[in-house]
Amino acid sequence: MKQIGIIGGLGPESTVQYYQSIIRRFQEKKGTRQVLPEIFINSINMYHIFRYITEWRLDDLITYVGNAARKLEHLEVDGMIIAANTPHLVFDEVQKQVNVPMISIVDATVEEAKNQGVEQIGLLGTKFTMERDFFKTPFEENGKRIDVPEEVTQQYLHEKIVNELENGIVNPETKKAFKQIVDEMIEQKQIDSLILGCTELPMIFSEEDFDIPLLDTMDIHVNKVVDFMFENEGIS
Amino acid sequence: MKQIGIIGGLGPESTVQYYQSIIRRFQEKKGTRQVLPEIFINSINMYHIFRYITEWRLDDLITYVGNAARKLEHLEVDGMIIAANTPHLVFDEVQKQVNVPMISIVDATVEEAKNQGVEQIGLLGTKFTMERDFFKTPFEENGKRIDVPEEVTQQYLHEKIVNELENGIVNPETKKAFKQIVDEMIEQKQIDSLILGCTELPMIFSEEDFDIPLLDTMDIHVNKVVDFMFENEGIS
Repeated sequence: MKQIGIIGGLGPESTVQYYQSIIRRFQEKKGTRQVLPEIFINSINMYHIFRYITEWRLDDLITYVGNAARKLEHLEVDGMIIAANTPHLVFDEVQKQVNVPMISIVDATVEEAKNQGVEQIGLLGTKFTMERDFFKTPFEENGKRIDVPEEVTQQYLHEKIVNELENGIVNPETKKAFKQIVDEMIEQKQIDSLILGCTELPMIFSEEDFDIPLLDTMDIHVNKVVDFMFENEGIS
Repeated sequence: MKQIGIIGGLGPESTVQYYQSIIRRFQEKKGTRQVLPEIFINSINMYHIFRYITEWRLDDLITYVGNAARKLEHLEVDGMIIAANTPHLVFDEVQKQVNVPMISIVDATVEEAKNQGVEQIGLLGTKFTMERDFFKTPFEENGKRIDVPEEVTQQYLHEKIVNELENGIVNPETKKAFKQIVDEMIEQKQIDSLILGCTELPMIFSEEDFDIPLLDTMDIHVNKVVDFMFENEGIS
């Protein structure tokens, strides 16, 4: 069995979701609850991440996430993930700092979009995920269109994600407003699917909320990671 | 700020509770939610632990938990904890394998019992925690009496903890039966307090369930650990 390391704390709520989902999916593949994978979590500080991105100090961001990755490498894990979308802004640069393979949430989601055959995809996430290119470009390179909300709406979504969801707060008013934003994207931009491009968004949305399929990046990432753990293994 | 490492996965449910409680308590002490401690979690396999204890292979147990501790030491944490009561059976032996100080859940609970002035204390936990001496002796050395249920009741409690609570299942029938066991201890043995000596027990009991104080070992342990993180620090 391959052992994985998680760079977490980005935020803690989604780290917990990752941890529990990886264990659940691992147990499903094993066909019993009487097994547990061994997992390392290096829980770092998302407020540093946000500050480095806001101040566009990308070198500091790469150093901070890179140090976290190197610590996991030190423990001789076989693979690792960053348990959040936003820090994937510097995924390639962090991967260059370690020899252990990292599994990208963006690549995993592109693969899933191809499998599902969706073409015109809405994207919600933090401001950085929506306004920067790191998430969009791999989709566009695969012939998919990515739509994001207007800038002022991006700012609203970002603040709610950071101040409410990251702290585990699910406010019904916020859910209603988020749903309306997506409904407008469906109507005005004819999106045929929606990327929950922030690991906290599944707290607020579920499949039943829309007629279009949701690409839950955390869920997709978890499946990819657990498949990796089982690579070259008989499932017994 | 001192950085701590957690030996977790024993089980995963209580690791999540530890992680979230440490962060919450840390933020309370800092007076803001806009801060996060950096934490390492080495999540190992509780089924190994249970097997080694059941088969009384204490050397294997010490090696397994000791290896987990050494990995955290490798990361240069300042202190570490085992996030469960049962493995404290070999706490002293594991501590001998690392130079980093470990904070014991048993010692923290003895200290809290002394602070609260309780004398005749009921103890619930896994079978190993109730039947072996590692939890009881430090209390007796401090002049406290520890009462545990009869052997057949211990077996019942153990199975419910392992098969339900460790898997995140809170069954109302189980809660009722557990409460009855404690009510009998209050009536027949005149216990003046109750140790929740298994980190899953707070899932099933709360302060309102009894007229006597509960010593929630996880909660006590978390407070002790967060105090340790702030040692020699101004709280600003």
